[in-house]
Amino acid sequence: MNYKMMGRFDALILAVEAIFMLPALLISLFLGEQGAVQSFLLSMGIILAVAAILALLSRNAKRDFYAREGLICVGTSWILMSLLGCLPFVFSGAIPNYVDALFEMVSGFTTTGASIIPDLDVIPRGIIYWRSFSHWVGGMGVLVFLLAIVPVSGQSEGFTMHLLRAESPGPDVGKLVPRMRQTAMVLYLSYLALSLLNLIFLLAGGMPIFDALCTMFGTAGTGGFGVYNDSLAGYSSYIQIVTAVFMLLFGINFSCYYLILLRKFRSVFRDEELRLYIGIVIASVALIVWNIYGLYDNLGETLKHSFFQVSSIITTTGFATTDFNLWPSFSKAILLFLMAIGACAGSTGGGLKCARLLLLAKSLRRNVSQILRPKKVKVIRVNDKPIDEKIIANTGAYFFVYIAIIAASVLIVSLDNFSFMTNFSAVLACFNNIGPGFDVVGATCNYSSFGVASKLVLIIDMLAGRLEIFPILVLFLPHAWKRG
Amino acid sequence: MNYKMMGRFDALILAVEAIFMLPALLISLFLGEQGAVQSFLLSMGIILAVAAILALLSRNAKRDFYAREGLICVGTSWILMSLLGCLPFVFSGAIPNYVDALFEMVSGFTTTGASIIPDLDVIPRGIIYWRSFSHWVGGMGVLVFLLAIVPVSGQSEGFTMHLLRAESPGPDVGKLVPRMRQTAMVLYLSYLALSLLNLIFLLAGGMPIFDALCTMFGTAGTGGFGVYNDSLAGYSSYIQIVTAVFMLLFGINFSCYYLILLRKFRSVFRDEELRLYIGIVIASVALIVWNIYGLYDNLGETLKHSFFQVSSIITTTGFATTDFNLWPSFSKAILLFLMAIGACAGSTGGGLKCARLLLLAKSLRRNVSQILRPKKVKVIRVNDKPIDEKIIANTGAYFFVYIAIIAASVLIVSLDNFSFMTNFSAVLACFNNIGPGFDVVGATCNYSSFGVASKLVLIIDMLAGRLEIFPILVLFLPHAWKRG
Repeated sequence: MNYKMMGRFDALILAVEAIFMLPALLISLFLGEQGAVQSFLLSMGIILAVAAILALLSRNAKRDFYAREGLICVGTSWILMSLLGCLPFVFSGAIPNYVDALFEMVSGFTTTGASIIPDLDVIPRGIIYWRSFSHWVGGMGVLVFLLAIVPVSGQSEGFTMHLLRAESPGPDVGKLVPRMRQTAMVLYLSYLALSLLNLIFLLAGGMPIFDALCTMFGTAGTGGFGVYNDSLAGYSSYIQIVTAVFMLLFGINFSCYYLILLRKFRSVFRDEELRLYIGIVIASVALIVWNIYGLYDNLGETLKHSFFQVSSIITTTGFATTDFNLWPSFSKAILLFLMAIGACAGSTGGGLKCARLLLLAKSLRRNVSQILRPKKVKVIRVNDKPIDEKIIANTGAYFFVYIAIIAASVLIVSLDNFSFMTNFSAVLACFNNIGPGFDVVGATCNYSSFGVASKLVLIIDMLAGRLEIFPILVLFLPHAWKRG
Repeated sequence: MNYKMMGRFDALILAVEAIFMLPALLISLFLGEQGAVQSFLLSMGIILAVAAILALLSRNAKRDFYAREGLICVGTSWILMSLLGCLPFVFSGAIPNYVDALFEMVSGFTTTGASIIPDLDVIPRGIIYWRSFSHWVGGMGVLVFLLAIVPVSGQSEGFTMHLLRAESPGPDVGKLVPRMRQTAMVLYLSYLALSLLNLIFLLAGGMPIFDALCTMFGTAGTGGFGVYNDSLAGYSSYIQIVTAVFMLLFGINFSCYYLILLRKFRSVFRDEELRLYIGIVIASVALIVWNIYGLYDNLGETLKHSFFQVSSIITTTGFATTDFNLWPSFSKAILLFLMAIGACAGSTGGGLKCARLLLLAKSLRRNVSQILRPKKVKVIRVNDKPIDEKIIANTGAYFFVYIAIIAASVLIVSLDNFSFMTNFSAVLACFNNIGPGFDVVGATCNYSSFGVASKLVLIIDMLAGRLEIFPILVLFLPHAWKRG
């Protein structure tokens, strides 16, 4: 195990985190939020000090770096970032309890958007900004950012690939361009461009710049932290529809945007995952409109609320324009399954991912046809490309551990004795990085009523969900830490 | 597709079904239940007539018979048996509505034990007997029975194997003895012997013979239909504990009993599935006792109720000695997961089966170790025997379709607008052949409040659960029916 290389990397990430706090600090300075200014300065000092110590301890790192190191490095760096990133919440008094503050920070970085803050109106704007900005940082992944922007000396191609693989969502990260670093750069530039476009559309609708920035961060990272207590219910229909459309766009595999830039429209149009994703959205909206018809004034309103909520849930963002907790059981069941399905691989969204659903369904189809005709050999293809059997086996194992983690988490959270819908949807909402669930954790409520044990379980779920389980899972395996 | 061979087999099965109705007819005759006597006679006449027509249509059957025919034959024969077997319920007026009667019959044959009868006290005893006896028939499988007892002329080894594979629970049916027919016979004799032993223990506790027979049928088939409205709550602690122990025994792989007969105690003791099964039972009982402590008078009572309910749910029987719907969320969550896990492969119990859980966990462990050390090749072993990669892939596909069917069913059942816990537990309880769920379908309630669409979905779930999905799934695939 190459601890020194990991330490060096963690030091770099913490330095970036401290720099990322600057805009929030400036906002607090500008608005005269003295307590917040002090807490940001103090936090940045602590973070930089820890980074310096780590850097000192890990001089003369060797260059060998394997998949195992990549996984553990990603897991530990996200945990470290969260442990220290939540300090401003504590110091400013916005969230005095450390576990609560950690919950909020993990929820931010993992783009979950589950909150324990009961009233946003009394929180300093600088803190609100940091909270929302963490979505944007976590959306594409801070390591991807680092790989794209900072030229780390002695950074080998294998090193970059293992880190990128471990942090990026989806069953397999293809190289868009021959070199991994360039892939990271293409991803980040698309992310930046789409974010700017989103911001322009929001500002064009007359949204104040602070609200527009925070909303864009939540949309781009598919996070879902709002600026106000009622999420997006108070904004105009224009803002709501723009947000719904951009949430969907950020849930698409970013390689599609690269293909569009290359004018390969046909490949985009024929992409099987994209088709499945859009098909699920259309079917869900249609079924919910049919089911809730009569709940709102007219068909337009019904359509808008259905579309917004479906887009918000399948992309695992978690914004809301209405209290979907009051919808009938059928619509709630649809939303619950959308929570589990999630967005496309290679997007900022969470969940199981449409690509995995596609692979599982295709492997099941092959299985059935092999039972009927045992002698026929069939290769699974996605977008006409044959898929390696190893990826199919991995997807099966991923699905099992995905369900097993949900079951174990629900069991522990049940000790708080809330309803099954509360526990089940809370775990789904955290593990799939959505945010709001149903009942006690519904769109108009928050997670503050859970006990400490449940909060810790949900924190682990959020991290495991964002990093696609394995980088967090291996941290619990003693033999993963062994030298050699 | 060899339709004639299938028709011949279905005719034989219906004839057996008519014969199986005789004891119930005699009981009704003896007790002077005139309406029931007439309804049994009428039903038997109709069943025999259908059997005769089928036999006439399928003279001169060819002998070729493949896996596909085996699957479809099992699926259609179970459906046919249920469609006609429920006639006495309708004719006697016990359940006037045909869909309800079909629900009850399918629930009986599949050893589910989910009921739509609100009051058992007004139902003729002959009808109650037929209802409970159907558990015993469905427990080991009527086709296995047929293969063991009736010498079908022109019955090839492949034919027997394909049928036995399709009807028997578990990821893989091993041959205990070289010939398949002898395997079927060994299975049925163990079943018969254990059933008799159970009956003797119940009679020794002073249980009336009718009650003892019906309770034994429900225990042996892991079905769960009771004789009284309060299930087993009204009986002595002795009867309850005997039943709890025998439920567990019927949830063990029957090949273990064969090994005991051969005095191979070591193999039984070392069986990994058996160890997992017993481990889960002990852990669940301990956790529930800790969680519900204080709910009952003393530790003995608490232990008894915990053990009984855990045994009843993990074996997918569904008897109850207390209303576990009133237990705290944590205990309910444990029971819910036991519902999904189910008993051992090769037993009369339903659910995912411990053997599959074991395979999934082992394949996950291999997956993680391959991520950590990509170059190491590892073979999965159960009981020191290497497992074919095909079985592992099949288990993964099975797990996916298992979860997908639960999701789709919950979605449709949600249209009746009950609570999520009601819908989710109703689907789990039917699909895993347990019987009672939570909330509206809790231990003291029944399934009569669901709409027709939900009942039909639950009927399909029960059949799919009992036959391990594929024999029912292929019936919905048009290309499975094609000739050639």
